[in-house]
Amino acid sequence: MSGEEPISGIGPGGRITLAHGGGGTAMRDLIERVFVATFHPEGTPPLEDQARFDLAAFAAHGDRLAFTTDGFVVEPLEFPGGDIGKLAVCGTVNDLAVGGARPVALSAGFIIEEGLELERLRRIVTSMAMEAARAQVPIVTGDTKVVPRGACDGLFITTTGIGVIRPDYQISIAGARPGDVILINGSLGDHGAAILCARGDLALDVTIKSDCAPLHDLAAALLQAVPQVRAMRDATRGGLAGVLTELAEASRVAIGVDEAALPVRSEVAGVCEILGLDPLYLANEGKLVAVVAPEHAEAALEAMRAHPLGVDAAIIGKVAAEGRPGTVTLINRFGGRRAVTMPSGEQLPRIC
Amino acid sequence: MSGEEPISGIGPGGRITLAHGGGGTAMRDLIERVFVATFHPEGTPPLEDQARFDLAAFAAHGDRLAFTTDGFVVEPLEFPGGDIGKLAVCGTVNDLAVGGARPVALSAGFIIEEGLELERLRRIVTSMAMEAARAQVPIVTGDTKVVPRGACDGLFITTTGIGVIRPDYQISIAGARPGDVILINGSLGDHGAAILCARGDLALDVTIKSDCAPLHDLAAALLQAVPQVRAMRDATRGGLAGVLTELAEASRVAIGVDEAALPVRSEVAGVCEILGLDPLYLANEGKLVAVVAPEHAEAALEAMRAHPLGVDAAIIGKVAAEGRPGTVTLINRFGGRRAVTMPSGEQLPRIC
Repeated sequence: MSGEEPISGIGPGGRITLAHGGGGTAMRDLIERVFVATFHPEGTPPLEDQARFDLAAFAAHGDRLAFTTDGFVVEPLEFPGGDIGKLAVCGTVNDLAVGGARPVALSAGFIIEEGLELERLRRIVTSMAMEAARAQVPIVTGDTKVVPRGACDGLFITTTGIGVIRPDYQISIAGARPGDVILINGSLGDHGAAILCARGDLALDVTIKSDCAPLHDLAAALLQAVPQVRAMRDATRGGLAGVLTELAEASRVAIGVDEAALPVRSEVAGVCEILGLDPLYLANEGKLVAVVAPEHAEAALEAMRAHPLGVDAAIIGKVAAEGRPGTVTLINRFGGRRAVTMPSGEQLPRIC
Repeated sequence: MSGEEPISGIGPGGRITLAHGGGGTAMRDLIERVFVATFHPEGTPPLEDQARFDLAAFAAHGDRLAFTTDGFVVEPLEFPGGDIGKLAVCGTVNDLAVGGARPVALSAGFIIEEGLELERLRRIVTSMAMEAARAQVPIVTGDTKVVPRGACDGLFITTTGIGVIRPDYQISIAGARPGDVILINGSLGDHGAAILCARGDLALDVTIKSDCAPLHDLAAALLQAVPQVRAMRDATRGGLAGVLTELAEASRVAIGVDEAALPVRSEVAGVCEILGLDPLYLANEGKLVAVVAPEHAEAALEAMRAHPLGVDAAIIGKVAAEGRPGTVTLINRFGGRRAVTMPSGEQLPRIC
C-alpha cells in the first residue's frame, strides 16, 4: 500500500504539507495513493466530485432515505479500543442505525494540520477502511483540506452517512409511551473512561478500552425481533443521562431508571469513584438505548443478548404511567429517588 | 431570532464555550436557538439524529442519487462577496450540480473554536440559511463540536449534499472526446483574488468580490438546452488549470486553450500582475467548465449567457483531434504555445 514512488510534497520527517490541500499534484497523490488506495484497494473509476447510486436498488430495501452527519475531534487521535478513524465510521453508522436505517455509504471530510506524520495518517485511514469493510458500509466520496500548523490540532474528520429505512420501521425520539420498557446493550461509560485514561494526565495505572463499535448489525437484529421498536438512540456525548432526558422531553413522558440494573464495568466504576465522575454522564461509542412496548421487552432483550455487542444487555428502566413529563428519575435499590438532569456540558472536551 | 432569554453557557464577551459542544443543555440551546431557528424558522419536528426523505419523491426526479462532501477552512471567515457559510452552501451545491444532479438537501458539520463570538456565528449561520433558501436546498441535519482555544482557527464547516440525477444525463470527467468544445461561465480568479486582498497583508488598495455562487440553476439551464453535456466541473482549488489538466488526464485527450478568450476582470489581472500570479491557477467559487460536442457549442453558450451567472460565458478552447493525451496547451494570440501543468499546490492556503 505504501507504493514505490514517494508521495509528492511530503515534508521533512515524513509529514503532510500545505501542498497536500492545494488542489494540485501533491493533493492528488495523497488522495489517490492514501485515501483511494486504502478505501478502494480493488481500483476505482476516475475520481468524480460525487458518488452515484442507483435509486432503484435503494427502493428494494426501503421507502425512506436517512441522512446524517457527525464531526470528530477526539484527542488523543489514537486510544485503546480505537482511533479517530474508527470512531468516525462507527459514529455515523450508529446515527443511521438508531433511526432504523440500513447504512448504505459514508463520505469522509478530512481537515489535516500541516506537519501531521504521513504514517500516522495512513494508520488512521487504514483503521477507517477496516472498520468500514467490517461494517460493509463503503466510504465512497471525500474531501481533504490542510491548514497551517496551529490552525487545527492534528486531524479532524467529518463523516456523513446515507441509509435506507424499511417501511414498517417507525422509530422516533418522540415515540416513547407510558408503560414502555427501556433497554441498553451493555456497560456505561467505557469510551469516556478510556479517553480520560489515554490522555495520561491522570496518574492512573489502568487501561480501559473504548466500546467504539458499529451498532447497525445489533440494531438490525433487534428490529428483526421487534419491528415495533418505538425509539432508539446511541448514548454518546452527554452519556445515558443525555439520551434519557432528551427522550423524556421529546416524548413528553416521565422516565424511571433502576440504578441497580445499570451495567458498569468495575474499572470504569473505579475511575469514576477516584475522579468524582458519574458513569451515567460519561460518553459511550458502542451503546444504544432502545424503547419498546412492555409486551416486546423480553424478545428485545433476548435479541440483544444473542448479538456479540449485546451480551451485557439489560432492561434499565421504564416509562412511568404517570409523573411530570420531561423528567428522568434514578431509583436506587432502597427505593431512594433522585432526579437526573441533562448535563450542561460534557465533563471532557474532545471526547469524540 | 436573537430570542428573549440568553443562550446558556455563553462566556464573557458573548463567546462560545466548550459547554456548547458537550451534549448537554448549552449545546441544545445553541443548536435549537441558533442553528435550527435560523435554518428552519417555521418550526420543526423533534430533533432526530438523522433527516429522512421519501424515496418515491426522489424517483420522480431521476434514477441516480448523487452524494458529495466538502470541508471549508477559509481565512478570513468573512470576505467581500461571501463568508465561510455561503461558501459551504455553494461549494457543495456546485459539486452536485456539475454532476448533473438536482440538489435535494445539505448537512452541515460545525467545528467551532472556544471563544468564537456568538454574534459572528449567528451572522455566518444566517448567511448559510439565506443562501440555502435562495438555492432552495434546505440544510436538514447537522453536528456541532467545540474545541478548546487554539485547537482550531475560528470555525470550520463541512457540508455534504445529496441530489438526484435525471436518467438522460451522463456527465463524467472522463467524458471529453476529440473535437469537443470547452466553455466557462465567466471570469477567472475572482475568489482567489478576493481572499488575497481580504487578508490585508498586502498593501493593495483594491476590493475584489468573490464570485461565490450556487451554480445548480445555471447547470440546469445548460442541461435543459444541451442534455448531452459530456463533462462539467467547477474550477475551485487549483483554478482552471487544475480542472483542465484533470479533464485531459481522465479523458485521455489533449486540450488546447485560447488565451485571448479567457475572461479575466481588470482588477484581478492587476492584482495578478503585481503579485506575479496567474489567473489560470487562482481559485473560483462560482465558475464551471463544461465540455460539449461541437454541434452543441452554440446552444450551450447561448443557454449560459441567458443566465445571470453566465453573462460573461465564453468558449475558451477545445479538445484537440490529436496530441498527447493528458496535456493542456495554452495558445496565445500570436500562435505561441505553452504547456499548462497541474499546479503542485495552491499558492494560497485556506482559500476555501
